[in-house]
Amino acid sequence: MKQARWQKIADWPLTLAAIVFLAAYSFEVIGDLDGPRATVAEAVIWATWAVFLADYIINLVLAQPRWFWFRTHILDLLIVVLPMLRPLRLLRLLTLLNVLHRTAGAALRSRVIVYVAGAATLLVFLSALAVLDSERSAPGATIVTFPDSMWWAFVTISTVGYGDFSPVTDLGRLIAVGLMLGGIALLGVVTATLASWIVERVAKQEEDSQSATRGEIKALSRQIAQLHEALDRPRAGEDSDAVTAGRR
Amino acid sequence: MKQARWQKIADWPLTLAAIVFLAAYSFEVIGDLDGPRATVAEAVIWATWAVFLADYIINLVLAQPRWFWFRTHILDLLIVVLPMLRPLRLLRLLTLLNVLHRTAGAALRSRVIVYVAGAATLLVFLSALAVLDSERSAPGATIVTFPDSMWWAFVTISTVGYGDFSPVTDLGRLIAVGLMLGGIALLGVVTATLASWIVERVAKQEEDSQSATRGEIKALSRQIAQLHEALDRPRAGEDSDAVTAGRR
Amino acid sequence: MKQARWQKIADWPLTLAAIVFLAAYSFEVIGDLDGPRATVAEAVIWATWAVFLADYIINLVLAQPRWFWFRTHILDLLIVVLPMLRPLRLLRLLTLLNVLHRTAGAALRSRVIVYVAGAATLLVFLSALAVLDSERSAPGATIVTFPDSMWWAFVTISTVGYGDFSPVTDLGRLIAVGLMLGGIALLGVVTATLASWIVERVAKQEEDSQSATRGEIKALSRQIAQLHEALDRPRAGEDSDAVTAGRR
Amino acid sequence: MKQARWQKIADWPLTLAAIVFLAAYSFEVIGDLDGPRATVAEAVIWATWAVFLADYIINLVLAQPRWFWFRTHILDLLIVVLPMLRPLRLLRLLTLLNVLHRTAGAALRSRVIVYVAGAATLLVFLSALAVLDSERSAPGATIVTFPDSMWWAFVTISTVGYGDFSPVTDLGRLIAVGLMLGGIALLGVVTATLASWIVERVAKQEEDSQSATRGEIKALSRQIAQLHEALDRPRAGEDSDAVTAGRR
Repeated sequence: MKQARWQKIADWPLTLAAIVFLAAYSFEVIGDLDGPRATVAEAVIWATWAVFLADYIINLVLAQPRWFWFRTHILDLLIVVLPMLRPLRLLRLLTLLNVLHRTAGAALRSRVIVYVAGAATLLVFLSALAVLDSERSAPGATIVTFPDSMWWAFVTISTVGYGDFSPVTDLGRLIAVGLMLGGIALLGVVTATLASWIVERVAKQEEDSQSATRGEIKALSRQIAQLHEALDRPRAGEDSDAVTAGRR
Repeated sequence: MKQARWQKIADWPLTLAAIVFLAAYSFEVIGDLDGPRATVAEAVIWATWAVFLADYIINLVLAQPRWFWFRTHILDLLIVVLPMLRPLRLLRLLTLLNVLHRTAGAALRSRVIVYVAGAATLLVFLSALAVLDSERSAPGATIVTFPDSMWWAFVTISTVGYGDFSPVTDLGRLIAVGLMLGGIALLGVVTATLASWIVERVAKQEEDSQSATRGEIKALSRQIAQLHEALDRPRAGEDSDAVTAGRR
Repeated sequence: MKQARWQKIADWPLTLAAIVFLAAYSFEVIGDLDGPRATVAEAVIWATWAVFLADYIINLVLAQPRWFWFRTHILDLLIVVLPMLRPLRLLRLLTLLNVLHRTAGAALRSRVIVYVAGAATLLVFLSALAVLDSERSAPGATIVTFPDSMWWAFVTISTVGYGDFSPVTDLGRLIAVGLMLGGIALLGVVTATLASWIVERVAKQEEDSQSATRGEIKALSRQIAQLHEALDRPRAGEDSDAVTAGRR
Repeated sequence: MKQARWQKIADWPLTLAAIVFLAAYSFEVIGDLDGPRATVAEAVIWATWAVFLADYIINLVLAQPRWFWFRTHILDLLIVVLPMLRPLRLLRLLTLLNVLHRTAGAALRSRVIVYVAGAATLLVFLSALAVLDSERSAPGATIVTFPDSMWWAFVTISTVGYGDFSPVTDLGRLIAVGLMLGGIALLGVVTATLASWIVERVAKQEEDSQSATRGEIKALSRQIAQLHEALDRPRAGEDSDAVTAGRR
């Protein structure tokens, strides 16, 4: 079987696994589960991990220049390996963005907007979950409920940073750094998209003169064609004249 | 009656209703009214709501492909429905921006600046009102006076976020998230407008060579026209010659 | 006397008055002067104010369509009137930027950078002075020394906003809002200048193909000129032929 | 010896000295060394300083218009002189970026990204070291461990600024201002690079019509060439006709 065909088959199951993982992880963290329910949630999480692991191994087996695929898919490896560090396995959910990518419109800018809005929402939600999971039981932690965690995530990604809540564990801070980078990227993409739009709109005003130039070139082309015709027609007459003259 | 005509008629009454609402809501929240004066303010607020509800229903009735209009005007629905959550009905005031839009100059960039400055000012003022309304009576809240609320709103929209004041209620935090998004958008628009201006100014220097190109094309066009003429004139003489020659 | 000539004469004295004002105000605020030294500093500040007032009145007298000049120079009026609110009269120092403008290089982007760096530095220094002046004697204020005030100004203009220091007086907060707007503008200008530079550099790579197009147009022009010549030359011979033929 | 040749020879030793300095300084600060180990670290730091000093002196001797070189290399002087203020001598490490510059790809944007990511990482790490070194022994300081210092540096460069940690010493605050400026630059570069990418991608869509224009010009050029040929060919026949006619 070709790798391309496998990837086509695996696409939706992987997306489904990511959604199931997100649901199970959300229930486990928000509900602060313990006892048999925690065991079920953990089992589901490990099952989705198995799906991703299987996909990674199959891809590695099918890839034609195997070493090249390995080198260019380090992120895929991280998604499979990092679940050992529980909250980071949420990276896996980035595959969810494929769905957004699929449903987004055709124009580049609207696709960028949908993608970024989706990524930011997912990033805020996942970071809130992961930080809560990491902080909840730490001594001196302030982020101990899910609403506070969501609030903290919004305050961080917008780079406002009130400081009413801030992580105290190393893992929580690592996730926070990721969220801050997400915030910088978010601001960058919003600004860049707006800049592109304004630059284009301003350029539209210039376009008239440009289309005028194009119009002139077309007119020029037509003129030359007419000239060509004008040159060909009489010449035919002239030739016959010359022939007549030659005959005489 | 056509929907377009209705919208033309309804435009100013809706703007007026929004202004009246803003005034009534400001008095109610800043003055921390109670007794008969609160009842009057509430009555005025509900009256403006009735205006917006009537407009929405009439639009829905008049809209030709009704379902299409419904789907593409979810925001209008939210503006009518959300007043149930009191502070959020301030969204209605976004129609105020139509006034700004009307008075703004012709050039795109100056219109963007006026629109954004107006939207930011309105957003800060409305968020300050709504957060104060939501926080004032909450236990442990720090935002309990209007000056502090305005200060908090400025600190938030600029993404500075000192943390000397921050909302503690869920509704207050929801409004804060909206204000943060507004701050990101504000920063984006300011940057994008400046970028567009600088890019254009730098491009102006390049324009000389471009206008030179256009000049060359025009010169070219003139040359061909002359060529055409030159070709037509002697040919006419030649034709008469040929005729003369043929006659002889 | 023409207004233009007056403005040329008044330019340097005004700049000097702004510098003297800055020095006197700095000494007064940083040194927390009292007694005769405070009186001297105050006298100098009022003297510089007189210079600005005189300039404003003379401009108003000389301006040809007086009402038009008044309407388009509201900022000049504010600079003269606002000194009543002591810290805000620092706005006057924006004329200092003329010096920077004068010494800056020719290229737009380097001029923008010098102007913005100068404006940001001035804004931070003046805000630190004004906030210190306003906060120092307020109950519960944290900004009570000049180093703390400078630190606070940097933390604010960069939109970092730790919250270790924040103004508590209304005037201090008003100045802080100005500083935040300055921070947003600073970030916007830095980004826009960088964006312009990167866009230009990327466009340079595209320029080759564009200059190729220009080259083609020139080649075209040359071809047509040759065609014109080729058309003119033989036709002259042809005409003489026709004459010869006609003569025969 | 020419200065250019010296700089080629000195490049790698200087880079090596910078790396050795970074390692020694890291060990000294993070390990909070004292006794003989601190002496060794200090000795290594002074040795790397000697390398930079020697390079500066040799450059000054070899430089042809010596005064010009001195004026245009103030930063080199600062790197040599400032080590007296221990943490600031880290500026020296900016030469490390030459390595990144060397290994980066060819395309402008990817080079900008690699350079900025490298510079930001170095800036965060060095600021964390320098602030820790400066704050550790200050009364009332909160930044007293390396993990806290790294966390503070990330919170600052992203302009989030929770305020859970903030420097209290003048030197620590000076470094913090540098880090904030780095954060503004980082945000600017990320946004500018994204804007350039989006503008280019949007422009790609416009390119079709532009290449169409170019195609038209080429077609035009071909038409004229054919016209030229058509004009030359029959005229040759005509000339021979005329000759024939003349001969008869």
